[in-house]
Amino acid sequence: MGTIRLLEPGDWEDWRALWDGYLAFYRAEVSDATSRATFERLSGGDDALFGLLALDDAGRGIGLANCVVHPTTWSRRPSCYLEDLFVAPSARGHDVGRALLEAIKETAGQRGAPRVYWHTQAYNGRARSLYDQVGRPTSFVVYEM
Amino acid sequence: MGTIRLLEPGDWEDWRALWDGYLAFYRAEVSDATSRATFERLSGGDDALFGLLALDDAGRGIGLANCVVHPTTWSRRPSCYLEDLFVAPSARGHDVGRALLEAIKETAGQRGAPRVYWHTQAYNGRARSLYDQVGRPTSFVVYEM
Amino acid sequence: MGTIRLLEPGDWEDWRALWDGYLAFYRAEVSDATSRATFERLSGGDDALFGLLALDDAGRGIGLANCVVHPTTWSRRPSCYLEDLFVAPSARGHDVGRALLEAIKETAGQRGAPRVYWHTQAYNGRARSLYDQVGRPTSFVVYEM
Amino acid sequence: MGTIRLLEPGDWEDWRALWDGYLAFYRAEVSDATSRATFERLSGGDDALFGLLALDDAGRGIGLANCVVHPTTWSRRPSCYLEDLFVAPSARGHDVGRALLEAIKETAGQRGAPRVYWHTQAYNGRARSLYDQVGRPTSFVVYEM
Repeated sequence: MGTIRLLEPGDWEDWRALWDGYLAFYRAEVSDATSRATFERLSGGDDALFGLLALDDAGRGIGLANCVVHPTTWSRRPSCYLEDLFVAPSARGHDVGRALLEAIKETAGQRGAPRVYWHTQAYNGRARSLYDQVGRPTSFVVYEM
Repeated sequence: MGTIRLLEPGDWEDWRALWDGYLAFYRAEVSDATSRATFERLSGGDDALFGLLALDDAGRGIGLANCVVHPTTWSRRPSCYLEDLFVAPSARGHDVGRALLEAIKETAGQRGAPRVYWHTQAYNGRARSLYDQVGRPTSFVVYEM
Repeated sequence: MGTIRLLEPGDWEDWRALWDGYLAFYRAEVSDATSRATFERLSGGDDALFGLLALDDAGRGIGLANCVVHPTTWSRRPSCYLEDLFVAPSARGHDVGRALLEAIKETAGQRGAPRVYWHTQAYNGRARSLYDQVGRPTSFVVYEM
Repeated sequence: MGTIRLLEPGDWEDWRALWDGYLAFYRAEVSDATSRATFERLSGGDDALFGLLALDDAGRGIGLANCVVHPTTWSRRPSCYLEDLFVAPSARGHDVGRALLEAIKETAGQRGAPRVYWHTQAYNGRARSLYDQVGRPTSFVVYEM
């Protein structure tokens, strides 16, 4: 595998292709304007967000991670919420997801956030078999209104 | 029941007693310094957080809700993360929890956050029987690292 | 709270009362002969098992833990299976369960077992709220045939 | 399908290939020394463990089962813990897993263990659809420390 680095303003094309693949997985739609605004915040426009991009040896984007660093009530240090994680289907089986998770943990720590958390579908076996190795399942489920 | 309003700087005594009860439920400990800093942020010191306090007819604190409003990648509007919700044992059975949830939804909307989400233990039947009424369960579980 | 120590041959009366309370919780029945044989193995008659007894200040039994140390395929060191854990209802609320878990971890380590695992009903909120603090939930469920 | 029999000292090559495939599924690593020691215990070197090997018509290993027979507190007879079960991807769809489970039940009975239990990831739909046929799910989840 190539490298993982912070998302940069010039990554729009690569990031957008991965983002579209990610949204398709969730059968979700996000408007172009929102996608563009999210990219800009992730690539440097907002201190509360950061994006990571995994690149193959040829420098093409093969994975993304979108993170939010937000305050929490249990600590004076913030938490890092990993909101989106995606590896291109053609790049799977090479531990890109694991490398992204490890890079998230490191980047979050650099930003003062000792804890990273994320949500995953209870039935997403492929993702959870990785998450069970790199992270820890909790007893918590997610509600919304 | 009395009323629900935003947490104010003068609510420290009431809030602290409820916060301690909440932490005891989770068998957790948070330092005095962090508790104080969290209270100050929730009661006006940080735009990204807000607290709600439920009061009985005599004006005593009987419930709290601590919320974080943070950016999200799926929308240009933020989300509201309900991090802590607690009703004093002596005040249970009078829909204080439901009233707090409804007030959270309203306050979050006023702050531009159309979506409120929270975590609850999969096995917490008492809480979930309320959450299933006011909110919606999702298929998501929580991981951390 | 008093103390926690290894089960001894003279503890039969105390252990039996706790064991009966434990079995009643699971609506289970175990014959007298088996209960007696289990006690003898736990109190020194079988290297593969050990029992712990929690005592109050007056020296009365208020909690038990029954453990099996068995080989595992993933390591050359054995694992410790915590098969039974029980605190007398009258002694609850004083962290006896937590103290027993910590003593199990220590005793298992002394017997060469770096890992302790146990089963709990998915819906047993009271137990899990403790287990979530002292241990870690996993993604595993239990099957039998 | 060919046959299922107890693991023998001459099965090292076949067993090791299956074991590696199994560990890769769990993204786990076990040292060579431990793998070798485990094989030796499973193939006759330890009464508390037994291994089963499924062979195709040409006598090649296509599936393994690693079992631990350990004492239990609820009975004077031991229980059989099925720790590892694996069928080579190329051999799936021919009921090798089911045949292994049935052979485990029979072998455990011969060794005095009337009950066989095992753990599986809650989200492993492929495995559970088989386990629900041959065995019974319980309400138990697994914790560790």
